[in-house]
Amino acid sequence: MSGRFLEDFDVGETIEAPGAYEMTPERIAAFAAEYDPQGIHLDPIVAAREMFGGIVASGWHSLSATMRLMVGSRLFDAGPIVGVGVDRLRYLQPVRAGDVLRARAEVIDVRPSRSHSNRGYVVMRVVTLRQDDVQVLTQDWTLLVPRR
Amino acid sequence: MSGRFLEDFDVGETIEAPGAYEMTPERIAAFAAEYDPQGIHLDPIVAAREMFGGIVASGWHSLSATMRLMVGSRLFDAGPIVGVGVDRLRYLQPVRAGDVLRARAEVIDVRPSRSHSNRGYVVMRVVTLRQDDVQVLTQDWTLLVPRR
Repeated sequence: MSGRFLEDFDVGETIEAPGAYEMTPERIAAFAAEYDPQGIHLDPIVAAREMFGGIVASGWHSLSATMRLMVGSRLFDAGPIVGVGVDRLRYLQPVRAGDVLRARAEVIDVRPSRSHSNRGYVVMRVVTLRQDDVQVLTQDWTLLVPRR
Repeated sequence: MSGRFLEDFDVGETIEAPGAYEMTPERIAAFAAEYDPQGIHLDPIVAAREMFGGIVASGWHSLSATMRLMVGSRLFDAGPIVGVGVDRLRYLQPVRAGDVLRARAEVIDVRPSRSHSNRGYVVMRVVTLRQDDVQVLTQDWTLLVPRR
């Protein structure tokens, strides 16, 4: 289990993930070919006709890139974190080639489990931002954390 | 925009994605190395000490695999689908090497947009199953769909 306990989290605590993730054309194509093979992610001619007017990264790619950024943060220093769910995930802006993503999180809820006295839940609002500080993606992670 | 319109969706409609996705050790390691580099996904010795007692696939990998399965379904036949959000995502069971995933979806809500008369939202409960029919992952997708 994680080396961090429920009692170590406070509502309002913020975690800034270090580093950045550049959405290169090669990364967009490689992810989409494997996991989301739609023309809007792979074919410039198809994509030009669609809602965003050009190729955009798969939303699942932006999500996965956000995880990569967060794994580099101190949230994961003490060991693995078990995520049990995600709520209120919103795709706010398309992500395009050349965009550079960063991530940060804020603790929005800390609560003991009702059924297991040795554990609890931490809810974090995770925000993914573009190079111009515009939010492209927000989501609330629920993490399972041991109690002391 | 999608070739399918809001009026084409009915609550209760089910979509079975064809095909299956095998979680091989190589796929688990490749995804984790790129997007979720934690010991529980990459290092058998670290993973053995943790909650699941061995290596498990990244949850983001299972999500991405679910998208790959769903892209093969008739939901995507008419063109791209724009997802605007995901709610009530729950990781129900760990996914391990050798597990074979399938996916299905059910329309649980169809509603016009309040602010834009030319569009609406379809909510689908998407379920990811293991080879033994146990649900490993559930989530509700909200899709933006044009009206006729």
